[in-house]
Amino acid sequence: MTLSQITTTHDAALSVALDAAINNKTKPLGSLGMLETLARQIGLIQQTTQPCISAPALIVFAGDHGVVAEGVSAYPQSVTWQMVENFLAGGAAINVFARQNQCALHIVDAGVNHDFGARDGLLDRKVAYGTRNFAQEPAMTAEQCALAMQHGAGLVAGLTGNVVGFGEMGIGNTTAAAAIMHAMTQVPVAECVGAGTGLAIEGVLHKQKVVQDALARHASVHAPLDVLATFGGFEIAMIAGAMLAAAERRMVLLIDGFIITSALLVLARLQPSILDYCVFAHCSDEHGHQQMLAHLGAQPILHMGLRLGEGTGSVLALPMLHAAVNFLREMTTFDAAAVSKKST
Amino acid sequence: MTLSQITTTHDAALSVALDAAINNKTKPLGSLGMLETLARQIGLIQQTTQPCISAPALIVFAGDHGVVAEGVSAYPQSVTWQMVENFLAGGAAINVFARQNQCALHIVDAGVNHDFGARDGLLDRKVAYGTRNFAQEPAMTAEQCALAMQHGAGLVAGLTGNVVGFGEMGIGNTTAAAAIMHAMTQVPVAECVGAGTGLAIEGVLHKQKVVQDALARHASVHAPLDVLATFGGFEIAMIAGAMLAAAERRMVLLIDGFIITSALLVLARLQPSILDYCVFAHCSDEHGHQQMLAHLGAQPILHMGLRLGEGTGSVLALPMLHAAVNFLREMTTFDAAAVSKKST
Repeated sequence: MTLSQITTTHDAALSVALDAAINNKTKPLGSLGMLETLARQIGLIQQTTQPCISAPALIVFAGDHGVVAEGVSAYPQSVTWQMVENFLAGGAAINVFARQNQCALHIVDAGVNHDFGARDGLLDRKVAYGTRNFAQEPAMTAEQCALAMQHGAGLVAGLTGNVVGFGEMGIGNTTAAAAIMHAMTQVPVAECVGAGTGLAIEGVLHKQKVVQDALARHASVHAPLDVLATFGGFEIAMIAGAMLAAAERRMVLLIDGFIITSALLVLARLQPSILDYCVFAHCSDEHGHQQMLAHLGAQPILHMGLRLGEGTGSVLALPMLHAAVNFLREMTTFDAAAVSKKST
Repeated sequence: MTLSQITTTHDAALSVALDAAINNKTKPLGSLGMLETLARQIGLIQQTTQPCISAPALIVFAGDHGVVAEGVSAYPQSVTWQMVENFLAGGAAINVFARQNQCALHIVDAGVNHDFGARDGLLDRKVAYGTRNFAQEPAMTAEQCALAMQHGAGLVAGLTGNVVGFGEMGIGNTTAAAAIMHAMTQVPVAECVGAGTGLAIEGVLHKQKVVQDALARHASVHAPLDVLATFGGFEIAMIAGAMLAAAERRMVLLIDGFIITSALLVLARLQPSILDYCVFAHCSDEHGHQQMLAHLGAQPILHMGLRLGEGTGSVLALPMLHAAVNFLREMTTFDAAAVSKKST
């Protein structure tokens, strides 16, 4: 996959104009906190002092992971396809929150170990029936990784809105993300590996050992896209491709939790300007996410102890994006409202 | 004002039923974090495993404070009535966020130092043209305080929904709230007093001295309602009355920032069970709010550096209340979806 250049959103004149617009609203200076930061960022992305949120969408990518053979998850692999069925039936958490927040929801088979057949509402981009076990060999070939990224980019090209979030489903994918995290940040493995869907302490320790041994086996792998291919899932690679395409289109990228951020860690090394387009929806309770965010210098919007995945944190943060653009577009100014300004 | 007894929402059998309902949803145990806590709490308030949010409303109470004569605010007193006009015209932050979140908005003149005349959309409950200067004498009489509380209760009696938030506007009211905070918690004055709408450091130090001296002058005042009358604003007393009435009606009380929480500090001493009905919307950036929340053992939903007032934090947290009841009502269960349960 050819990586085109992502341009920074930096624009000194527009920044000044945005600050002026925000500071003239009838409120104490800075009193909308993170909403002001968001309004500035979205204004810079959209190159306007009147940004808007249009047709937000969340794409959920599902994929299976060969590394589950090592016993790294609290749930059996079949839960991946069963949850895809649940998404299609509308009964999962992401369905509920997407309906509530009027967010379009797209479900993608990136590489689930199951035959769904042709199904309404399921986008078939299956690269293979799950990755290989990275405890023994690279999870995917370079060609598979590139194909997954291309599929992700193609899916984003079909969107009509200006905000896109990314979700995932894949038993074993916190193990993959933990390995990517260590490879991209050098944060100690014990701090990268967490309980995932709910491992007890012995399970977490075993998972740490699996990741540690796999990293040792693939110790010569350092280049970001090689790390992605070696440890990633098809859903993670597809998300990475989708993120690149979204940033190229100057969309707002809503970044969810541990898995989604692992894809961004890979891209941030290749194209640091992608971070200009990223809004960090929440800090997940999955061990390691907080350090991922710190590594990226990210300030997440929500801190609600979520660790469900599926992109739920991103959709739950959507109202805050709306609030950010709404206050900028709809609030009156001190002059227009004839409200006295600060006197001291 | 006679205080009727507020009953606890504690119900062991219903708690077990709510836990079972939450834990059978197709998600890892506990993975919706604070949303699960919220769903449980709202279920207990509404005495059902199928809680709902119906016709949420925010009441903004405006009042003026005699203590502004001491130079404690960055803005002139006239901003109180000017901002009320802004609310009526629909141009303030609270208007924007209430529209976005389909929250009914009621604006109350609790005691503004201004003649509005009869105005569409303004509820006239003016107790007086601002309180007296508590640096010199009690802010209000016991009768005025009781009248304000009765007005607040009456306003809540007119609501049709099951969630109510409280907002405020009143130049000088962070000074009043800081004095109440110290009197009710004994937290050192320096930690109760903050920048309000934007005092510089010298202003904050002066405000601390005003509060410290006033507390010394009224050192014999300890009973909660006496503290409320001595330091409170008409808007703060009216909010307290509204909160009591809302808890009596088993409504969900959405608690906003520093001023609103100061009213609750008074009530929590009189009727500790009121806390069962309180959802803490956010942790304000106003110095002191975090310690107020800690004093009450409260876990706020949002941490977004907001300090605007008006009830903005409460309305911004409304989507999370919707998310909490929606996941409980709409998500499918492991059995219904035929999704495998945890295997380890």
